[in-house]
Amino acid sequence: MVTPPNSALFTDQYELTMLQASLHSGAAHRRCVFEAFARRLPAGRRYGVVAGTGRLLEELAGFRFDDAQLAFLGDHRIVDDTTLAWLAGFRFSGSISGYAEGEAYFPNSPILTVESTFAEACILETLILSILNHDSAIASAASRMTGAAAGRPCIEMGSRRTHEESAVAAARAAIIGGFASTSNLEAGRRYGVPTVGTAAHSFTLLHDSEREAFEAQVAALGRSTSLLVDTYDVEQGVRTAVEVAGPELGAVRLDSGDLVAQARWVRELLDDLGNDTTKIVVTSDLDEFAIGLLASAPVDSYGVGTSLVTGSGAPTAGMVYKLVSRQDDGGTFVAVAKAAKNKASVGGHKHALRRLDEHGTAQAEIVGIGITPASDGNDRPLVQQFVKDGVVLPGWTGPEAVARAAERHAQSIAELPGAVRRLQRGEPVIPTEYEEAAS
Amino acid sequence: MVTPPNSALFTDQYELTMLQASLHSGAAHRRCVFEAFARRLPAGRRYGVVAGTGRLLEELAGFRFDDAQLAFLGDHRIVDDTTLAWLAGFRFSGSISGYAEGEAYFPNSPILTVESTFAEACILETLILSILNHDSAIASAASRMTGAAAGRPCIEMGSRRTHEESAVAAARAAIIGGFASTSNLEAGRRYGVPTVGTAAHSFTLLHDSEREAFEAQVAALGRSTSLLVDTYDVEQGVRTAVEVAGPELGAVRLDSGDLVAQARWVRELLDDLGNDTTKIVVTSDLDEFAIGLLASAPVDSYGVGTSLVTGSGAPTAGMVYKLVSRQDDGGTFVAVAKAAKNKASVGGHKHALRRLDEHGTAQAEIVGIGITPASDGNDRPLVQQFVKDGVVLPGWTGPEAVARAAERHAQSIAELPGAVRRLQRGEPVIPTEYEEAAS
Repeated sequence: MVTPPNSALFTDQYELTMLQASLHSGAAHRRCVFEAFARRLPAGRRYGVVAGTGRLLEELAGFRFDDAQLAFLGDHRIVDDTTLAWLAGFRFSGSISGYAEGEAYFPNSPILTVESTFAEACILETLILSILNHDSAIASAASRMTGAAAGRPCIEMGSRRTHEESAVAAARAAIIGGFASTSNLEAGRRYGVPTVGTAAHSFTLLHDSEREAFEAQVAALGRSTSLLVDTYDVEQGVRTAVEVAGPELGAVRLDSGDLVAQARWVRELLDDLGNDTTKIVVTSDLDEFAIGLLASAPVDSYGVGTSLVTGSGAPTAGMVYKLVSRQDDGGTFVAVAKAAKNKASVGGHKHALRRLDEHGTAQAEIVGIGITPASDGNDRPLVQQFVKDGVVLPGWTGPEAVARAAERHAQSIAELPGAVRRLQRGEPVIPTEYEEAAS
Repeated sequence: MVTPPNSALFTDQYELTMLQASLHSGAAHRRCVFEAFARRLPAGRRYGVVAGTGRLLEELAGFRFDDAQLAFLGDHRIVDDTTLAWLAGFRFSGSISGYAEGEAYFPNSPILTVESTFAEACILETLILSILNHDSAIASAASRMTGAAAGRPCIEMGSRRTHEESAVAAARAAIIGGFASTSNLEAGRRYGVPTVGTAAHSFTLLHDSEREAFEAQVAALGRSTSLLVDTYDVEQGVRTAVEVAGPELGAVRLDSGDLVAQARWVRELLDDLGNDTTKIVVTSDLDEFAIGLLASAPVDSYGVGTSLVTGSGAPTAGMVYKLVSRQDDGGTFVAVAKAAKNKASVGGHKHALRRLDEHGTAQAEIVGIGITPASDGNDRPLVQQFVKDGVVLPGWTGPEAVARAAERHAQSIAELPGAVRRLQRGEPVIPTEYEEAAS
């Protein structure tokens, strides 16, 4: 596994000033329950997909206030010496549970729960939300795209349209959301996901003719390569590609124009030329709607860039991280929640399960407030434990976790009502219902 | 300066397969000119703001294929041994020029130009675009917000709504776009930008009463702190804040509800209580339009999160990186461009200046194709040299470059016609005009 950078200052300053003030008042040591959840899904979305938890658990190990971090905080007088001393000794010793990566989620699903002292949970806020909000936004978009692709492979190629590190995380989230591969090499290195890519227009333009470029590519990469045929004239490009590579040509890529019409006549042309096993890859500002429109066209795979890495209109999942329960001086846990207008929260430690009918189809997201909701036996518990008393439990990190999350995602979607695959705006495909202990 | 991680695999695989194929054909060694530009601005935007160049130049130093990178590429047979050997020895030896950070840009402005062999320029594509597309999107959104704020300070606090590394870059870009400070501590450490922050609702909820929380905060952080007053009841919150901190209370923060109405009566209440120097900070899903609507309210500063870090509707700048000119076998440079439908480009090495009238107001973006456009003396040249023969020139990197870019941004915006500050959708505030050598 690749060691992530020190993540301790991926933190909003107020977390450390709150730490200082709570160390001063003594409340820093109260046991707390913090919860990450989304008040709502992005407008019109029917479900969300959890991603990022594995990255979070990996970065938790690098969340250390080393000399460089402490010197910055001290030199700029961001916190006092008592706080610096506490930070220097910080190792997360609490517990973290929540929805596994790949799982579908709904409004108010308790996606991540952190149990520790206030001090320990408070300073993780920004790291937790940055990772979950970004990665879940991408996985949610990816899931809609792979749904629309209905089994045809989707290739993630959006690195250039997002921050260079986001690109790596986006490729990881795309795989969780059902993508088959990525163009991003660092994602391949870190997470063991399949990488692909052959050539761009610049390669054709570099050579004195399209034929010379194709000959160079086939000579270097073999006949099974994918040739980009739309630099000049698509029909001529296809004919030249077949002449150069012969019947073993792996694929042609179309990156402009009316892709539906083009894919049809390019397919016919390839077949007429005897290249009936040569595949057609399409790229060019695809999103889930464009993919849906291409369902009837003879396309073999979709390369998706911009709209994937920008969450297809919802670039952040909008999750928040709230204190929902804390001890009082007597050690009793008290549910707490902000009362502010338009941002009210539900206090209390949450537990959740997915209510299934007798056919195994999801009916509702049941969230228990302070209790584990009663299950009828078909229901599926949703909360997994990731960290116990500071120790990250095995199975939730590394490349294996990505592969497992992709499988889990497919199962989670298959369990939801069929309307989950509708791209039109609508309500969440299942409702969220609360259960409380009888008082 | 903080050492960035090895950036060599922030790269789409096709760059390395093109490298392999061009090494095989020999064309890899042809001198080339690649250009990064945006075919259009995001829908309705009147200008864009360049950002990221400094980060790119910093990461260029870490773009090295070390053992770990080479082992990955070799083990997965992504490229052949000849290509691995070339990559092992790679040091960028070409030249890079373009628009300085903070500068406004328009459709087809030649924002970055790379001159080198095909091999060297080709493999930088993804890193260049990732950085410029992300950072420019954020700086462009930031600029609209600071314009709407009309001198009131804007605070960047969006870290939690974007990838943890994007968050650092977003804070940097926000400062370039005119923001006064950020909540992101890593941005403070890397780029020397001012950081701020005091407390969240969880701090109030942690304590047994709002009064106890305020007392703890004031005891630890001083009377000049900012108290968040909307956890329970805003009026009571303000009264308690003033009782606890007295007339020296620095600020109150409002994070929910109707901010315009609330700011008015909170201002009156503060004044009535004798706290006429206590400031009002507003946060809560602000964007440039919300900031504009708050212009008439007695607000002292704006905290902006989600909509800043997601580019306020345009999360990527949509720049592309295209081969525009290359040598032929005789050593003569030939302008090249893709002819594909809906994505045609203009070939040729570009030069640019901003045409100014006698009052110093910008009239047009003049792009010379293969020539430096004729200037009437008022016009301002736009292209700066950043890298010469592999050496990064001084002044374009580090914290100093950020501060200088923020100044440049203010000057660049001041030079544009007044319509630049209109938030409504419209055309670019100046047109882009091409000049070519007489043939």
